[in-house]
Amino acid sequence: MRDDETEGRITLADVASKAGVSLSTVSKVLNGRPDVAAPTRSKVERLLEANGYQRPAPTQPESRLIEIVFHELESVWAMELIRGVENVAKSRNMSVVLTESGTRHAPGPEWIEGVLRRRPLGVVLVFSSLPDDIKRKLRSRAINFVIIDPAGDPEPDVPSVGSANWAGGVAATRHLIDLGHRRIGIITGPDDMLCSLARLDGFRSAMGMAGLAVDNDLIRYGDFHVQGGHDGALALLEQPDPPTAIFAGSDLQALGVLEAARVKGLQVPRDLSVVGYDDLPLAQWASPSLTTVNQPLVEMAEEAARMLLRLSQPEEAGDKSNTRMELGVRLVVRKSTASPREPGATPAG
Amino acid sequence: MRDDETEGRITLADVASKAGVSLSTVSKVLNGRPDVAAPTRSKVERLLEANGYQRPAPTQPESRLIEIVFHELESVWAMELIRGVENVAKSRNMSVVLTESGTRHAPGPEWIEGVLRRRPLGVVLVFSSLPDDIKRKLRSRAINFVIIDPAGDPEPDVPSVGSANWAGGVAATRHLIDLGHRRIGIITGPDDMLCSLARLDGFRSAMGMAGLAVDNDLIRYGDFHVQGGHDGALALLEQPDPPTAIFAGSDLQALGVLEAARVKGLQVPRDLSVVGYDDLPLAQWASPSLTTVNQPLVEMAEEAARMLLRLSQPEEAGDKSNTRMELGVRLVVRKSTASPREPGATPAG
Repeated sequence: MRDDETEGRITLADVASKAGVSLSTVSKVLNGRPDVAAPTRSKVERLLEANGYQRPAPTQPESRLIEIVFHELESVWAMELIRGVENVAKSRNMSVVLTESGTRHAPGPEWIEGVLRRRPLGVVLVFSSLPDDIKRKLRSRAINFVIIDPAGDPEPDVPSVGSANWAGGVAATRHLIDLGHRRIGIITGPDDMLCSLARLDGFRSAMGMAGLAVDNDLIRYGDFHVQGGHDGALALLEQPDPPTAIFAGSDLQALGVLEAARVKGLQVPRDLSVVGYDDLPLAQWASPSLTTVNQPLVEMAEEAARMLLRLSQPEEAGDKSNTRMELGVRLVVRKSTASPREPGATPAG
Repeated sequence: MRDDETEGRITLADVASKAGVSLSTVSKVLNGRPDVAAPTRSKVERLLEANGYQRPAPTQPESRLIEIVFHELESVWAMELIRGVENVAKSRNMSVVLTESGTRHAPGPEWIEGVLRRRPLGVVLVFSSLPDDIKRKLRSRAINFVIIDPAGDPEPDVPSVGSANWAGGVAATRHLIDLGHRRIGIITGPDDMLCSLARLDGFRSAMGMAGLAVDNDLIRYGDFHVQGGHDGALALLEQPDPPTAIFAGSDLQALGVLEAARVKGLQVPRDLSVVGYDDLPLAQWASPSLTTVNQPLVEMAEEAARMLLRLSQPEEAGDKSNTRMELGVRLVVRKSTASPREPGATPAG
């Protein structure tokens, strides 16, 4: 009795027989070869998927490619994540294939055909959700995939690497409290992203632990971009009793806060302290340089690539333990934060 | 008489015969297949190169991969260039393979083997020089390559895309002159990069055309990074008769000038005008947002990828006419420049 049968799995010969095609045709479909008529390809695909066919772990030489798929490359995060995957690839003498899925939030059908042809070691997805049929196709070819998920909203059945957003919110807020700030504003991200909510909850908890009341007028939601930080900061600073410090939720939002302060004639950090989040390279180039929460984007991408390497080891291929990972964050103190001039004083301007 | 012979080229059969191996072994070497003993591979490689073998234009279906090779991914330019290549690849339903060559300024031998296996449509090299043996290997396999060369120092025998650095220096300087500035400082890049010298020469010419003398004390060389701009600006601003405007040579150097101005208590643009170069995304996020010279990095990468597509058309493969291209630059006016407070006045601070 073959192993395949003991596990109730279908063999390629079974699929060929059910589809009424040759074994070689089934093999061509599995390998993404173009020389199969579309109706035949569809029929074979359906049978493979309906029967949950799983390719055995590959015996061929290890693939030299790792794929990385972005929803959009515009993001300031993209370069950090590419560097992380590239670091691991380079150390293994591998190359990285980059795909931008574009307006769709998931890679399209032509992408999956390319992946099947290229036979990568695995696929790192950034911020993309995967339709079930693509998950099934990848699994049926024994191509592993890992999602890098800075938004903190992982799909339960997909290996993923994220970071500790709640702890980051606590760290940023505690730093401001320790400096002597009592009226602290927050501009978090969009209210439909879990990472925004986690950072805000961290802020609330740090305030509560210090015995400070949270003034709901000092909470704003942004867009994680410069404009959101700018608009949120103006709204906070034009209140009768404005905050002496703002936790800006992201580095880009912090740049918007710096611009709002400049326009209002406030000096940072003398009149207003600002904390960012992410620690992108631009955080140290801002004027003044940003105190921020370091989100280890390069390391997150490295972990995702290493997770793929582990998953591709035959002895661990079935091991689904430890496939959700949150990396720690840390506060980086630079020049955009200081003690308030007088506790409770209203800044000039 | 075969065409090969009329052009004095060697055939694969000739190589096989000279090497004392089968034609199939020669073919394996050409295709980067691993199952050839190293001494045999070397011998065949040497014969292919010594005899200038050139693979005929490919008859197989068009490749679905474009390779891009960086010296280092740290550069703030990297993302813009990747996006350009990706834009063209996506429109053709192709994928991009990314390689970082690391401390070497050229990709290593394991890279070339990977390229031969993957058979890309072509290779875009960023800021990398290519050793002659790699050029020969790529040419012998009919794999085209194009260099993106923002430094303005193209190798004469390699297709390349650059941009108009001299004209950019003129545009930045004219803008400051038109605003009424007369004492204008420049921090250009390293003195061993042609693009630094071209921008400086554009500055000199614009000053000369306006009948303004160039004060050599107002010329500084930087490193194209934030620190170079910061140090250069301090040196300029601490002179007895400091400039009222600084052409900062790059956006990163402009950020350093902004920081130097902040530390000196100078307001930009009231006390000091600053012009950057590159128009990276961060230029619009700076506080104040940077007036800068837009270097069309995305378009340069798109042109490089399109040049590969053209070179891979068999009917144009031999056409080496339009394979050096310089794209135009344009001034983008934002908030870091204004007229001087009083012509010739020394800024406060």
